[in-house]
Amino acid sequence: MPVRYELIKECKETKARVGRLHTPHGVIDTPVFMPVGTQATVKTMTPEELKEIGAQIILANTYHLYLRPGHELIKEAGGLHRFMHWDRPILTDSGGFQVFSLGPLRNITEEGVTFKSHLDGSSHFLSPEKVMEIEMALGSTIAMAFDECAPYPSSYEYARAAMERTTRWAKRCKAAHHKEDQALFGIVQGVTYRDLREQSAAEIVEIDFPGYAIGGLSVGEPKPLMYEVLDYTVPLLPKDKPRYLMGVGSPDCLLEGVALGVDMFDCVLPTRIARNGTCLTSRGKVVIRNAAYARDFSPLDPECDCYTCRNYSRAYLRHLFKAEEVLALRLATIHNLYFLLRLMEGIRQAILEDRFVEFKRQFMAKYEGDQEE
Amino acid sequence: MPVRYELIKECKETKARVGRLHTPHGVIDTPVFMPVGTQATVKTMTPEELKEIGAQIILANTYHLYLRPGHELIKEAGGLHRFMHWDRPILTDSGGFQVFSLGPLRNITEEGVTFKSHLDGSSHFLSPEKVMEIEMALGSTIAMAFDECAPYPSSYEYARAAMERTTRWAKRCKAAHHKEDQALFGIVQGVTYRDLREQSAAEIVEIDFPGYAIGGLSVGEPKPLMYEVLDYTVPLLPKDKPRYLMGVGSPDCLLEGVALGVDMFDCVLPTRIARNGTCLTSRGKVVIRNAAYARDFSPLDPECDCYTCRNYSRAYLRHLFKAEEVLALRLATIHNLYFLLRLMEGIRQAILEDRFVEFKRQFMAKYEGDQEE
Repeated sequence: MPVRYELIKECKETKARVGRLHTPHGVIDTPVFMPVGTQATVKTMTPEELKEIGAQIILANTYHLYLRPGHELIKEAGGLHRFMHWDRPILTDSGGFQVFSLGPLRNITEEGVTFKSHLDGSSHFLSPEKVMEIEMALGSTIAMAFDECAPYPSSYEYARAAMERTTRWAKRCKAAHHKEDQALFGIVQGVTYRDLREQSAAEIVEIDFPGYAIGGLSVGEPKPLMYEVLDYTVPLLPKDKPRYLMGVGSPDCLLEGVALGVDMFDCVLPTRIARNGTCLTSRGKVVIRNAAYARDFSPLDPECDCYTCRNYSRAYLRHLFKAEEVLALRLATIHNLYFLLRLMEGIRQAILEDRFVEFKRQFMAKYEGDQEE
Repeated sequence: MPVRYELIKECKETKARVGRLHTPHGVIDTPVFMPVGTQATVKTMTPEELKEIGAQIILANTYHLYLRPGHELIKEAGGLHRFMHWDRPILTDSGGFQVFSLGPLRNITEEGVTFKSHLDGSSHFLSPEKVMEIEMALGSTIAMAFDECAPYPSSYEYARAAMERTTRWAKRCKAAHHKEDQALFGIVQGVTYRDLREQSAAEIVEIDFPGYAIGGLSVGEPKPLMYEVLDYTVPLLPKDKPRYLMGVGSPDCLLEGVALGVDMFDCVLPTRIARNGTCLTSRGKVVIRNAAYARDFSPLDPECDCYTCRNYSRAYLRHLFKAEEVLALRLATIHNLYFLLRLMEGIRQAILEDRFVEFKRQFMAKYEGDQEE
């Protein structure tokens, strides 16, 4: 088994749990947040900086890397780790989410998906077998099965068809996957229909993967509905395997997700809003371009000890954003990722010390109390 | 005296010399190249990264900082050093070059220059006294006098008028400057007219500054003409003061400038071409976007031990540039600045070891022999 989940401690009041995911590229303490490095780089950051802020594993996007620079080139380079100079674990998604988001540019059949590249309009075909070939070439630590991610809302019929196809594709993925040092995770679909989620979980678990993702959430549905789906879906997954909630990364959703038993998360949110000048702080979001910060010589977050908060003022950050300087993007990204990674560390510590519920309550009270937007 | 030049060693065959410039913010080994941090940041770099590659002093642009975020705001922040988190020496130019480059947007009188901001079209007035106020507020280690930089080519009459005004403005700058821990350097003008350069040097040296710049070069004239002007102008400057050639930064010009007795240089070239994907290497320039590098898994420069060359391939750098990733700009900037700073280190060492002429010959033979463009 290329990855192995070790359960360390369970919360008594919620389904939260602390564990360790053993992989060929090192051990990951869970619950974990995975920064997104879409194009073989976590935007604006070096691998050394990611390590310095405590990133344990990053995500890369199969769809983007397949189109540019191409999985064969990356294989020739010695794999994704070597290509991008990152020796800790990498999880690659399957490209399913991106391809299905292309709308009129793609066509789904039982065999796979035909689509046009967003880069140059060229035609491509992805099937479960092709996606396995790509992910094996990339050589990620954890590969995701090729699934059909139905949108929210979807009709019951569409949701069921997509979910059942996801099961058939998951079987084809497992049959096509043959890389001993790479783990293949299955994905549970079913939109927000309880019986479909139950059927999907049963079928995907039956196939037997070393880890399971809950897909098709955080795609536009209200947060309470996402929590409801997690509440009845997570318990259907085996306790001795990691559970991964795809596409989630706001502080409140991370805390709720952990409380509902999720071990792994990824999201572009912290890095994307950073580049737009929105910073996550212990007192809520700070939109650093605001005129109010022009002469504010205090740090972004007085409770933060990241590189940005230790060395720069809000006034300087605002100046850099107004002047469109690259350093602005870097400093905001470092801070936002550090903020989320430190939150996850706090969550793990709180679970270990039997005070997770209190930690969650205190964090949210301060975070939402001063929130700006 | 806020800065003091210590002559360490002179080359026997050229006018090259090694020295130390003692400043309130530390000692600078000369000849030195100063990376440009126009808007209070050397584009894409942190101060720690600049130190790691050996930057001893950086330049910031008075014109840009005056317009945004404003010198008063920076003064309030505790000065430019604190604002931008850089504790080594900073040299600020006078804004003269930028203002005179504005063309129809500016109007020159004996009192000063009226111009419109390139940012918002607002009207501004800069005089020698105003520029001193701004540079003192910024608190740079070395401030430059406000000069009139005549273009190349200029008529003899225009060149003389601008040069004589530069002398009168230099006197007004010295009279208005009152900051004991900041050095004020004078600037010699005169375009490419020998008698004007001689008159300017005599007048500016007569005013008595702790350092002298040769301005109005590297503004479009042929390189041999620039070398000719340096050849007869530098000897007119006192040996016990540093000589600064403004706006020069290509490897060949640095080597010639040093040979002609120059101690300080600055230029946007290495950082600007880096962001365009052009890299300086021991074998000439490498345009990293070229298709030839798509599957080139060797480092940018096999003889370089910078962070970029130690950890990344040409193929990865090309991918980052094609994908428009910020990390591309960072890695190319680190490499180009390191290349020039290492060149200056090599020059100093060669002068100290009485082999500067041979060093220069060998460097240029390899650099130009393999040059791509």
